Amino acid sequence: MDNKRVRVGLAGFGIVGSGVVKILLENAEEIKTRTGVSLELACVVDSDLNRPRPVSLPTGLLTADLRRLINDSSIDIGIELIGGTGFARQLHHQLLESGKHVVTANKALLAEHGPELYSAARAAKKCIAFEASCCGGMPIISAIRTGLAANRITALYGILNGTCNYILSNMTQRNMDFASALRQAQDKGYAEANPKLDINGSDSAHKLTILGSLAFGCEIPFDSVYIEGIEGIGIEDIQHGLEMGYVIKLLAIGQRDAQGKISLRVHPSFISKNTPLARVSGPFNAVSIFGHAVGNTLYFGRGAGMMPTASAVVADLIEVALGNSQTLFDNMRWTPQAQARARLSDIGCINSRFYIKVMAKDKPGVVAAYGKILGDHNISISGALQHEGRGPDNSVPVVITTHPTQQKNMVAALDQFQKLDVVCGKPVCIRIVDIPEDSE
Amino acid sequence: MDNKRVRVGLAGFGIVGSGVVKILLENAEEIKTRTGVSLELACVVDSDLNRPRPVSLPTGLLTADLRRLINDSSIDIGIELIGGTGFARQLHHQLLESGKHVVTANKALLAEHGPELYSAARAAKKCIAFEASCCGGMPIISAIRTGLAANRITALYGILNGTCNYILSNMTQRNMDFASALRQAQDKGYAEANPKLDINGSDSAHKLTILGSLAFGCEIPFDSVYIEGIEGIGIEDIQHGLEMGYVIKLLAIGQRDAQGKISLRVHPSFISKNTPLARVSGPFNAVSIFGHAVGNTLYFGRGAGMMPTASAVVADLIEVALGNSQTLFDNMRWTPQAQARARLSDIGCINSRFYIKVMAKDKPGVVAAYGKILGDHNISISGALQHEGRGPDNSVPVVITTHPTQQKNMVAALDQFQKLDVVCGKPVCIRIVDIPEDSE
Repeated sequence: MDNKRVRVGLAGFGIVGSGVVKILLENAEEIKTRTGVSLELACVVDSDLNRPRPVSLPTGLLTADLRRLINDSSIDIGIELIGGTGFARQLHHQLLESGKHVVTANKALLAEHGPELYSAARAAKKCIAFEASCCGGMPIISAIRTGLAANRITALYGILNGTCNYILSNMTQRNMDFASALRQAQDKGYAEANPKLDINGSDSAHKLTILGSLAFGCEIPFDSVYIEGIEGIGIEDIQHGLEMGYVIKLLAIGQRDAQGKISLRVHPSFISKNTPLARVSGPFNAVSIFGHAVGNTLYFGRGAGMMPTASAVVADLIEVALGNSQTLFDNMRWTPQAQARARLSDIGCINSRFYIKVMAKDKPGVVAAYGKILGDHNISISGALQHEGRGPDNSVPVVITTHPTQQKNMVAALDQFQKLDVVCGKPVCIRIVDIPEDSE
Repeated sequence: MDNKRVRVGLAGFGIVGSGVVKILLENAEEIKTRTGVSLELACVVDSDLNRPRPVSLPTGLLTADLRRLINDSSIDIGIELIGGTGFARQLHHQLLESGKHVVTANKALLAEHGPELYSAARAAKKCIAFEASCCGGMPIISAIRTGLAANRITALYGILNGTCNYILSNMTQRNMDFASALRQAQDKGYAEANPKLDINGSDSAHKLTILGSLAFGCEIPFDSVYIEGIEGIGIEDIQHGLEMGYVIKLLAIGQRDAQGKISLRVHPSFISKNTPLARVSGPFNAVSIFGHAVGNTLYFGRGAGMMPTASAVVADLIEVALGNSQTLFDNMRWTPQAQARARLSDIGCINSRFYIKVMAKDKPGVVAAYGKILGDHNISISGALQHEGRGPDNSVPVVITTHPTQQKNMVAALDQFQKLDVVCGKPVCIRIVDIPEDSE
């Protein structure tokens, strides 16, 4: 029951780095009482020594010299909060080679180069802990790895990007167009100046790669995740969806079918307004996980921001200090064993329901033409919506929803829709995802 | 990276015990792949050898002789799924003394005798793991102990009893009276033949004692939890609450005030219909936890039942096998150190808002009489509801809601209400709990 005293060095004194420093300086005593771990901040490395930050460091801790972190053998854990997949990747290797554990929030790096880094950590007999890489302070990685360890996980459905959720919530609830909603997200600090990785779905896909690997126990190449962003979503379609009982979310979906094949995809999704994920609005994250024994468990919280993400970084520091992270890391048996690579479903063969809107000239024969194309592709209609009246170009939006069909059938049908002369422009196609109520 | 082979013995082959056996027999291979742990079932002890069960055991494992578990030194972990605070308590001591770790779902035992058992485990250099004691398979204990370890937890709000939530949901959504809703819960298998511990709030209080100890890092005597059950709740009050924007839940609340004083209470509570916990209906559990860094995180899942609870038992077996449970157990520093006993708030001094209904004779001066009593006790009215028309005994329900006031003021005011001649019968008093949106 002696206190474990652990020295940590931080690389990257930005927003999250400042949060970590704040917790380490202000909460050390309480953390020691609750967990028995004394966390001692040895140095903070950042190339910018002068930028104002929301926390002040004791004199002498801040340095621009990375060697103070790498070469100090008294430092047990290096925290990488630099981000990106270039310099950070090299830093992980340097930290591991110099005998340090690594704690990181870098989802892009782990999604794209995880197996390489995990191998390096194995070779160095150290661990990489990355609770902060997914969903901020919400302990979702710990839930998958330990709380649900007895389960065969069959599916996870996540709202993994707070920026997109904030934008879509505003479009839905306040009838804002995409550009205004994005601007508001930027004003509120929920979206970065360059929000591309958020809104194009890549950020969610990075997180899904990490969560899917852990949930399904296999190595998942990042480029096997199917990705569509939210850039093309219009408020008219959001409103039509609402009329039909659906709310739009950028959903990250991981599924394992009965044959053990895995599918991973990120795309705008209409989900029933009665499903718990539909009620997660604003900048929050939530993940619904289905295990064969536990049924559906759902986790909700702030997925980003200074203090929530710092909360996860410090939780990892404690777990590394206690030795628990090393044990869990050593038992991530699927990496880097090549045979544990995921057997992946072809995205074209994934079954989904669809919402389709075509702008059609208001004249006889339109519905018959659609119906024939859909029937020819073995697609069955589950609902339809056409409001009376017409637009200025004499076209009307005709909305149909379908029963489940393979994606490749729908792609082929859409191609034919576009060739009809009664159709104006490109049809809108958004997947409808039926999240099960519970697996039991 | 060798497999850890661990032998486990089970005492109590009931519903949850059957679920544990099912997972151990059917999922051993997958658990080994994901976690590196081989769990080997050595024996199952139950006094009833013949009852039909939903899983069949390999020959020779089932026995009525507890010594096969206690005296077998090759067994590393004993699972106690007997329940109750009598024989089970003795069994915990026997298991620990014979050099076994204990995994249990027994919330009553740990809430009432936890410190004694934790001391015994310390003395034996073993651990007690109890994820299954609270909220079934939802990994809430792990979330508090590890995921949120960097946080000063300020409050938790939980729907911890699925039976009560099922009953209250049916009363709210289907206008059923209490007796019919209870009968339906029994028919569905959500309530036991003797549902007393569920509906009188004791079961929730047992769980709150455990969760509160971990969240606030102090020993909490079970008898310090204030408890009211749901037996007295009428559908008329549920309907009035709905009209005013509130949903009724049996809420378990743990709070730490700015001075570090802890309060723990279980009582029927009106909560805003817009708060996420209000939407948790049916037999589910959910817990909302507020940490100073992470803000609000929420956990949702099945809080009881064969497979969900078994999921948590087996997760604990894995964590014990990996050694992580021992580390966490050793760092539960607050027990059995007497100085770490919680400093508790006097329930009479806790601030709450209230919903009050009095049946009043329909004549002049009634409102003035109420108003005076409330004013005399320094209680401020926040809302009122009185429908036109009157009941057969010439009385009308007059509902008011209050701003926060100390409980003792409200008790005194209610006492005076009853003495008014314009008031018929006992006033109804239900607390209104304002769950913060987020702590930030």
